[in-house]
Amino acid sequence: MSAGDGKAPLTVGIAGLGTVGSGTLRALAANAEALALRCGRPIRVVAVSARDRGKDRGLDLSGCRWLDDPLALAADPEVEVVVELIGGSDGPAKALVEAALQAGKPVVTANKALLAHHGTALAQLAEAKGVGLCYEAAVAGGIPVIGLLRDGLAGNRVQRVAGILNGTCNYILTTMRESGREFADVLAEAQALGYAEADPSFDIDGVDAAHKLAILTALAFGCAVDFEAVRVEGIRDIAALDIGFAEELGLRIKLLGVATAEAEGVAQRVEPVMVPLGNPLAAVEGVFNAVLAKGDFVGTIMAEGAGAGERPTASAVVADLAAIARGYRRPVFGVPAAALTRARPVPAEGQIGAYYLRLMVIDRPGVIAEVAAALRDEEISVEALLQRGRAPGEIVPVVITTHETTEGRMRRAVARIDALEACLESPRLIRIEGE
Amino acid sequence: MSAGDGKAPLTVGIAGLGTVGSGTLRALAANAEALALRCGRPIRVVAVSARDRGKDRGLDLSGCRWLDDPLALAADPEVEVVVELIGGSDGPAKALVEAALQAGKPVVTANKALLAHHGTALAQLAEAKGVGLCYEAAVAGGIPVIGLLRDGLAGNRVQRVAGILNGTCNYILTTMRESGREFADVLAEAQALGYAEADPSFDIDGVDAAHKLAILTALAFGCAVDFEAVRVEGIRDIAALDIGFAEELGLRIKLLGVATAEAEGVAQRVEPVMVPLGNPLAAVEGVFNAVLAKGDFVGTIMAEGAGAGERPTASAVVADLAAIARGYRRPVFGVPAAALTRARPVPAEGQIGAYYLRLMVIDRPGVIAEVAAALRDEEISVEALLQRGRAPGEIVPVVITTHETTEGRMRRAVARIDALEACLESPRLIRIEGE
Repeated sequence: MSAGDGKAPLTVGIAGLGTVGSGTLRALAANAEALALRCGRPIRVVAVSARDRGKDRGLDLSGCRWLDDPLALAADPEVEVVVELIGGSDGPAKALVEAALQAGKPVVTANKALLAHHGTALAQLAEAKGVGLCYEAAVAGGIPVIGLLRDGLAGNRVQRVAGILNGTCNYILTTMRESGREFADVLAEAQALGYAEADPSFDIDGVDAAHKLAILTALAFGCAVDFEAVRVEGIRDIAALDIGFAEELGLRIKLLGVATAEAEGVAQRVEPVMVPLGNPLAAVEGVFNAVLAKGDFVGTIMAEGAGAGERPTASAVVADLAAIARGYRRPVFGVPAAALTRARPVPAEGQIGAYYLRLMVIDRPGVIAEVAAALRDEEISVEALLQRGRAPGEIVPVVITTHETTEGRMRRAVARIDALEACLESPRLIRIEGE
Repeated sequence: MSAGDGKAPLTVGIAGLGTVGSGTLRALAANAEALALRCGRPIRVVAVSARDRGKDRGLDLSGCRWLDDPLALAADPEVEVVVELIGGSDGPAKALVEAALQAGKPVVTANKALLAHHGTALAQLAEAKGVGLCYEAAVAGGIPVIGLLRDGLAGNRVQRVAGILNGTCNYILTTMRESGREFADVLAEAQALGYAEADPSFDIDGVDAAHKLAILTALAFGCAVDFEAVRVEGIRDIAALDIGFAEELGLRIKLLGVATAEAEGVAQRVEPVMVPLGNPLAAVEGVFNAVLAKGDFVGTIMAEGAGAGERPTASAVVADLAAIARGYRRPVFGVPAAALTRARPVPAEGQIGAYYLRLMVIDRPGVIAEVAAALRDEEISVEALLQRGRAPGEIVPVVITTHETTEGRMRRAVARIDALEACLESPRLIRIEGE
């Protein structure tokens, strides 16, 4: 039996031939026969559009038409599915996705910014037109986490999603830990190696991870995408000193995106967090990504793999095309777009967590007592206190870990400690994740 | 908007109300509204069948009919989908699945033994009748690894699948490592705690893991299910001594199921293996399961979670029901059953691996030279040699790790070493997995 014999191919138009677009063409070519068998019909790219026609991408484009205007893909009668790999939350990417859906064509996109900002509206449009909007490649690259949440955990009420969603940050934090070097130094090296962009702020300030978290949150909890509600803090302020203390405490600093369903609403945060070594996220190192989900029946599951790169991301784009070729139709964010509720963001004040607090204080009698009093007055209970070395009259780091408390209490205590005369730098506060 | 309003429910009949059956009923009840939203229609259990009608399972069965004969579910005109949770590779489970498919009803099953022995024939029957045969719950419990391979990696040529597929074995090995105790002792405790069966051989001799691996192999490589081709070795012979040496070497002993696509065919093995700490499988401890897959585009990805238990396994059963309710149809083993090729099993002789070899030898001059000569004559290169303690004239353990060689060479060298006068016990040989 040969592959998808006689069945009409699924015809695809691809906009954007950067890393992911090129990888997608390569994957479709390399595994064409297997895909036709798996889908019951071949998948054929009939048209492409990109900025520079002359550029040598090492691709054989002889089988497909070149369109200078990506929007033409939406109107092209030969194109059944549009793959948007242009990027950017607005502009041509948004125009193309809207036009394609409007024309009744399913869309596959890797564009996290677009979905984070316009996901709910686009889902409504896709469902009104009765076509799919697929975005496996938008979150965690090759890890099929969208399918895992939407299909694999369909029988669960998801309570929590947590992920290492940005490979650049994870690479920097891993390298800092392994080498003992400071952030700026490691960032410069990552830029030289091509692991970080010339303008790295999108990654290191947590924006990219926040885009992805907003998408995961909508899917996990069936609520409207709400990027504005994500509290974001990046990794610029992480010091080698804190990474060293974390190691001593059996913790590892990770930039985590965490979304939790709580009684009052949904909390979404991207921030550096200390993860205990017993938590599987702690073992995810270097450029790898991972997503952990907790459901009321499945318990905790985690998937890890390559979160970016030409070939892994292409794998995710092709998975979406295969599902479309097989005729699989699901609501964009797991439940019908009309049923996506607007979740109330949970105020930071009341969020529960254990904390790591690092102070730079003058080593003299009474300082620890003052610090302890500030914590006691907020009913924060200390788990451990570490002072490294003794140097009477000099500045020493003091590290305190606490049991669970509210963020409001913790911030009030920290403000009081910050005001102490013996406290010479702003205290460093990092939340500690559970096992 | 309310859940699946007005849409006809998907009607389900469940055979078997043990742990998984009870969990499935509980999951469908607990998350009924979310499921109806996600699937566009409610999922309703209309009939059940189990051995003991009088038993109190803590379930409300008032909404569904009780059938004494599970086979009656296949014939019941009100039942659209049959869920088989009876278990066993033959007998009533097989009869029911065949009858349901024959009647044109999709089947959901958690029965790995059934699929390992009759998977190809059942897939042919299901596809001939144009209905689905779903088995997410048959492998790795709650981890949606079937969906991950079939949908998530659809764009890949899979080269390798490796998994910790039996929670009982992983629990025993983890406890042995943490406590330093011997196998028999830890097994007895696991039995007392209910983590191991009264007759544990199905788990500890690797049969259960081999059933699951045979299924994963078919799905990953698009070949016919071939349980007979799985080489199986269990964990009865693992000694605390070897677990200790592994720890010293930065390795951890796991019962792994590994399937690889090679030039000559497909190799399937279930055996205790030493896994380097840098391999994510090494960090999967206790009763947890994990599956790692390597594809030509996605690279290496791993999913981990609860591999058994009422609620996780129910989560997987419900995921299959949700896919059926949404109308998703895929070939049972990824490609049409008619296209499943009979893969040639790769002979053990030629399989490549690095090895751990532990000898009990008399501590006297010349012994190591004799051992080294046996290895050299088979062109096996030694990576490390460890002798713990010195005790002239007494028995001491000697550990050797090798670089990659063929299993044939290694076994010939071991036979020669075993025959040495100074070698007082049969050498212990364990393969070392890559990073």
